[in-house]
Amino acid sequence: MRELELIDALEEVLGRASPRVVRSLGDDAAVVRGRGGYAVTSVDAMVDGVHFRTGQLAPEDIGHRALAAALSDLAAMGAAPGEAYLMFGIPEGIGLDEALALARGAQELASEAGVTIAGGDVTRAPALVVSFTVVGWAADPEELVGRDGARPGDVVAVTGTLGGAGAGLALVEERARARALPPGLARMLRGRYARPTPRLAEGRELSALGARAMIDLSDGLATDAGHIARRSGVRIELSLGALPLADGVAEIAAELGVEPRSFAATAGEDYELCACVPEGLRDGPAVNDSGAQRAGVLQRAGLTRIGSVVEGPAGVAFVDAGDELSGYEHAF
Amino acid sequence: MRELELIDALEEVLGRASPRVVRSLGDDAAVVRGRGGYAVTSVDAMVDGVHFRTGQLAPEDIGHRALAAALSDLAAMGAAPGEAYLMFGIPEGIGLDEALALARGAQELASEAGVTIAGGDVTRAPALVVSFTVVGWAADPEELVGRDGARPGDVVAVTGTLGGAGAGLALVEERARARALPPGLARMLRGRYARPTPRLAEGRELSALGARAMIDLSDGLATDAGHIARRSGVRIELSLGALPLADGVAEIAAELGVEPRSFAATAGEDYELCACVPEGLRDGPAVNDSGAQRAGVLQRAGLTRIGSVVEGPAGVAFVDAGDELSGYEHAF
Repeated sequence: MRELELIDALEEVLGRASPRVVRSLGDDAAVVRGRGGYAVTSVDAMVDGVHFRTGQLAPEDIGHRALAAALSDLAAMGAAPGEAYLMFGIPEGIGLDEALALARGAQELASEAGVTIAGGDVTRAPALVVSFTVVGWAADPEELVGRDGARPGDVVAVTGTLGGAGAGLALVEERARARALPPGLARMLRGRYARPTPRLAEGRELSALGARAMIDLSDGLATDAGHIARRSGVRIELSLGALPLADGVAEIAAELGVEPRSFAATAGEDYELCACVPEGLRDGPAVNDSGAQRAGVLQRAGLTRIGSVVEGPAGVAFVDAGDELSGYEHAF
Repeated sequence: MRELELIDALEEVLGRASPRVVRSLGDDAAVVRGRGGYAVTSVDAMVDGVHFRTGQLAPEDIGHRALAAALSDLAAMGAAPGEAYLMFGIPEGIGLDEALALARGAQELASEAGVTIAGGDVTRAPALVVSFTVVGWAADPEELVGRDGARPGDVVAVTGTLGGAGAGLALVEERARARALPPGLARMLRGRYARPTPRLAEGRELSALGARAMIDLSDGLATDAGHIARRSGVRIELSLGALPLADGVAEIAAELGVEPRSFAATAGEDYELCACVPEGLRDGPAVNDSGAQRAGVLQRAGLTRIGSVVEGPAGVAFVDAGDELSGYEHAF
């Protein structure tokens, strides 16, 4: 496959650009009118054998998943997503159809998220590499939520449920067989791993509701909450018992011989958001503060309180964990 | 080497951000105040064994070269460069020092070019991958020069000299030995390959002078001029005899047993600019039109007329070439 042939074919797959996109594929660079004075930019790369295995996922899944991981970083800033730029490293043995299937999987998610894939680069490589640079926009940087704003007294909450992607990966890798699960649930868990959903609307609503620090759960709650703790200079106390487990995680964890909530706290790639919010949100979405629509978004995302920010040496502690999670306190 | 350890160390190497950069490394995304309403974005990836060989270049060269190739795309749009975002795929056997040397090489060029490396991603990979997403800014998209604006009657010109990077590569790969060259010249040619200079100031001046189409020479003049021809729907007639050869190219080409001007027309990676400009620039920099400063930039870049845009089927023809280059007329 020649690179130029792939680039031409990509123009078909990625054809529909937002009217803000003045130039996209086929020139030296893409030209995009911003939607606010501030660009919010993140890069996320996935490599075969490191972040996925080509034999275990369809090319469409791989494309979707790489873009989802990148957009999840914008969600964690509370940014409105705008454009994505792809980088594909294509090894021998991956043909034009498969490379276009990667792009199609990404394009489906881009369309759902209102994102234009406006350009990029393709090259030969010894293993499949799929990297996305994503750009969101903000009129005022104060709207955006970093990792460094958590303060003692804040509530720590997560969107959705945890452990689903980890359980799905165990199924994809055939380390677990889901004998105890109905087929629909096993499929759903595989989907949590193969096609994660970046929590873009939830990130913006959490920002609007006053979240002070936020991160997306790519490496697992224990590790990712640690990044907030370190950047904010605070201690984060979490409760394993409070973690919202995805359906089926208990059964898969039992099959793997691990404690389900520890599994959910350390398995990564759920791409849920972990936010530190002022006390006002303690009892769930702040209906009084924010109106029914915002509360609705967060209720659909199932915001769950899982702990608190306290004074103390920067780190994460699970207040009700056994020995197995105690190391996370110093894991960074 | 742990990824987090590298990221922490990168913050030291890439420390100096422009005041427009509100957030950079260490958060989910970088936040940057734009310098104009339009973002100009390009991605360029380089892979060990495809675009370079780790044994032949120092890590600093590899970092410099990857960023230079990406910035060269902004030069070819006539955009003012702003930020860069890195993606490093690091194989086993490359340690922290070497990874930081990649970043240091890129940072040196970034500082020269007034670019902030504001974020990115690092991951394990089976081979070294160095990719940069670069962002430039423009207040008005009309200031930017695409590949599609060439019109019959335009003059085709290039900055600088050609063939130097190709000759340098022959020296780096020890296909040529430079016995006929003084040591300083051999070193200069190796530098043309290892540390190319993106023609950012020249791109903006060519844009200001009214260039209608522009591209940077990464794949070689014959191929790259073909992209302009195809996108603009024009025929480009070039003269081999007019090509400005870099010093030493004639000697290296002789050693390789190839015709020097054909070598210069097809060897890539010079990262000079090829521009189609209205007739007014025919006799060199348009001093009368543009003032001494602009003319000075282009004179220092050594703008050379190498051909014309004419009516006819889209393609490139070398009017004075032998058989060896006739294929390029249909090479895309």
